[in-house]
Amino acid sequence: MDLQIPKGTRDFSPEEKIVMDKIVSTLKEVFELYGYAPLDTPILERFDVLASKYAGGAEILKETFKLKDQGNRELGLRYDLTVPLARYVGMNPTIKIPFKRYQVGEVFRDGPVASARYRQFTQCDVDVVGSSSMAVDAEIIALIYVAFCKFNFEVSIKVNNRKLLNDILNYCGIEKSKQENVILSIDKLEKLGMNVVKNELKEQKIDSDKTDKILNIINIKGSNNEKISQLKKILKNSDGLNEIEQLLGYLKNLNFEAEFDVSLARGLAYYTGTVIETFLKNSSVKSSVCAGGRYDNMIGAFLGKGNYPAVGVSFGVDRIYDAVVEKQKTKRKTNSKVYIIPIKTLNQSMKIAQQLRDAGINTDIDSMERGPSKNLEYANSLGIPYVIFVGKKELEQNKLKLRDMKSGKEEMISIDDAISKIKLIYS
Amino acid sequence: MDLQIPKGTRDFSPEEKIVMDKIVSTLKEVFELYGYAPLDTPILERFDVLASKYAGGAEILKETFKLKDQGNRELGLRYDLTVPLARYVGMNPTIKIPFKRYQVGEVFRDGPVASARYRQFTQCDVDVVGSSSMAVDAEIIALIYVAFCKFNFEVSIKVNNRKLLNDILNYCGIEKSKQENVILSIDKLEKLGMNVVKNELKEQKIDSDKTDKILNIINIKGSNNEKISQLKKILKNSDGLNEIEQLLGYLKNLNFEAEFDVSLARGLAYYTGTVIETFLKNSSVKSSVCAGGRYDNMIGAFLGKGNYPAVGVSFGVDRIYDAVVEKQKTKRKTNSKVYIIPIKTLNQSMKIAQQLRDAGINTDIDSMERGPSKNLEYANSLGIPYVIFVGKKELEQNKLKLRDMKSGKEEMISIDDAISKIKLIYS
Repeated sequence: MDLQIPKGTRDFSPEEKIVMDKIVSTLKEVFELYGYAPLDTPILERFDVLASKYAGGAEILKETFKLKDQGNRELGLRYDLTVPLARYVGMNPTIKIPFKRYQVGEVFRDGPVASARYRQFTQCDVDVVGSSSMAVDAEIIALIYVAFCKFNFEVSIKVNNRKLLNDILNYCGIEKSKQENVILSIDKLEKLGMNVVKNELKEQKIDSDKTDKILNIINIKGSNNEKISQLKKILKNSDGLNEIEQLLGYLKNLNFEAEFDVSLARGLAYYTGTVIETFLKNSSVKSSVCAGGRYDNMIGAFLGKGNYPAVGVSFGVDRIYDAVVEKQKTKRKTNSKVYIIPIKTLNQSMKIAQQLRDAGINTDIDSMERGPSKNLEYANSLGIPYVIFVGKKELEQNKLKLRDMKSGKEEMISIDDAISKIKLIYS
Repeated sequence: MDLQIPKGTRDFSPEEKIVMDKIVSTLKEVFELYGYAPLDTPILERFDVLASKYAGGAEILKETFKLKDQGNRELGLRYDLTVPLARYVGMNPTIKIPFKRYQVGEVFRDGPVASARYRQFTQCDVDVVGSSSMAVDAEIIALIYVAFCKFNFEVSIKVNNRKLLNDILNYCGIEKSKQENVILSIDKLEKLGMNVVKNELKEQKIDSDKTDKILNIINIKGSNNEKISQLKKILKNSDGLNEIEQLLGYLKNLNFEAEFDVSLARGLAYYTGTVIETFLKNSSVKSSVCAGGRYDNMIGAFLGKGNYPAVGVSFGVDRIYDAVVEKQKTKRKTNSKVYIIPIKTLNQSMKIAQQLRDAGINTDIDSMERGPSKNLEYANSLGIPYVIFVGKKELEQNKLKLRDMKSGKEEMISIDDAISKIKLIYS
């Protein structure tokens, strides 16, 4: 049989998964520091929910895995955690507002497979539903900085505002009905370059002088303040620009900052205000590692009533993983601290293993009754820091032989002393 | 729009997910105590891997969700974590043996939806690949006891051995080719009763006197030792019986025990030796909450060569969740410890929130500038234990007002004192 995994997916070996778990647990810790509570929703969603016109839009729907259950109901694998959140809030209208939740889970996109693009990947999302204050957007950006600081990464965070983009398009004379597609094209500027965007806008029947006007404005250079004052002159009164100004003000108050990038758009249809993208400095991972924004209309549209402003970002855990591994010096293949080698003492050794575990020490034991040298090689290859030999001689003295695998030093000590010693090192 | 989730799936609200996370993190902790390292594999598998004749068998394949990617490749959603493990070991033949891994993940079965049966559910698996020693089977049973002890559950663990069942069927004159189906029918004895099993065996063209002979043997009563000695008289020399005897011996050495139940079979085709099922005492959850066994042939068959004895169990986290919730007295809707209420001091309050978070305290803050009574009601409904008021008066004194939500007591203290106090309580 030809063993393979699906294209665009990957296994995480123990040494990889230990890193991944650390990333996710660090993110969860930061999310809880900022007052977010966990939520979980199924990987399967009804296809009509994923395909709703208020959801991710046509581009992403093309990449959605579709399937049926035995009752012939159309289902899909979720492509993000935001649409499920909207569905959840819609189905639970009595939820306390603001609803601050985080969610960690697998999402699926049946798109082209490229470097750092997977068909199954993990997202870690934080969102606030119910508050339209820019203070929330600012806190989310602070949270992003704090999270990457815990991973020892410097990041640059770019922000923009969809309302501002709409205001710019209005100013340039683009009809409302064409604006969404124009914005989705603008989003490709950084990645695919000016000419691709110009061609796409041409296909959308945008006059070339209007295209030039748009591109001139979104390519405005300077500091955040310089960009804001230039745009103020052009647009006079723009809600989006006011929001950006407020957002940057709250951030400054918290001693954080973000780069105001007028060309930033984000590919999803549902954004309505702030959009955020995060890039690592000094890493070969060049794609965005955390992105999101405001989507003030989606949840209300799902629910069919009410006003549910919302903002959130998604951490791309697989990309963060790639970046962390690149910098990683030592790798661990297990979290075991001790490996017990019984020398014709399996029953007594199993009891000693149980005592170590009862004391909270991660302990492995040879059950295959292999020889000491084969066992030492095994413990060494897994990077387990301590080995305990249990032979007849040791048992007669009510002791065991503890070997420090790094120094090679061995000592005969009682089990209680061994437990105290190992606990002290790992406390 | 009619918002629904797929049949047989469920959302976990924050108060539910907090419980679920606690269960999973406790299990992981126990798995690591016993020397297991984490592994992760994709939710999507190639359909031919899931459908391999060495995998879960025809019954489970009927319940497998099938889908295609854009390259028209046939994929499936994994129905367990054991087949992916076999595939992983098969694809990584240089892995260090024994390979002790745990995995936590969603699995999918498109079966009938009944109480405590979901179409998407979480499994937590521990498996050892490469050792055929009954010492490993015994340690896994010890691990099950320790895990449920951490949840404050008493459990009864039943064990049997597939080789023993085959020996019994040989003794009763059942042809080898019919034995697998007979065993799958015997598995239904406890759930569906004697008559269903008799009818199924009749359909499999087993003579009724042979059926009676089988049922008499597998219904043997008495203590473990009594059952073993009765079976020894009948079967003379049975490897399966020897394994059970060894297993129970190792368990006794560790001060644990299990009930030897000759009728236990387990529904999956791939088991070859020990089978294990765990039931909660004093719970309305009657189904098995942790089950598994030995599957010494599957991985070698996947790999097409070599000898990969393996044993493992799967914890049914959703059922454990149901049982935990049933006994639960207090519910938490968030892990936040403090809720800050700014009284026209949003900027300064945001700074204070940041200070608390920098000190490691899970902190939420009102960004909507609602009134104190509305905010208190919100903090109370989420069960947040402390509230901090920040008004102009407090800021002038360089203090804040800390309210203990349980006692209602309020005090004016400095931010440093508030941090020390809250950290002390939650350390």
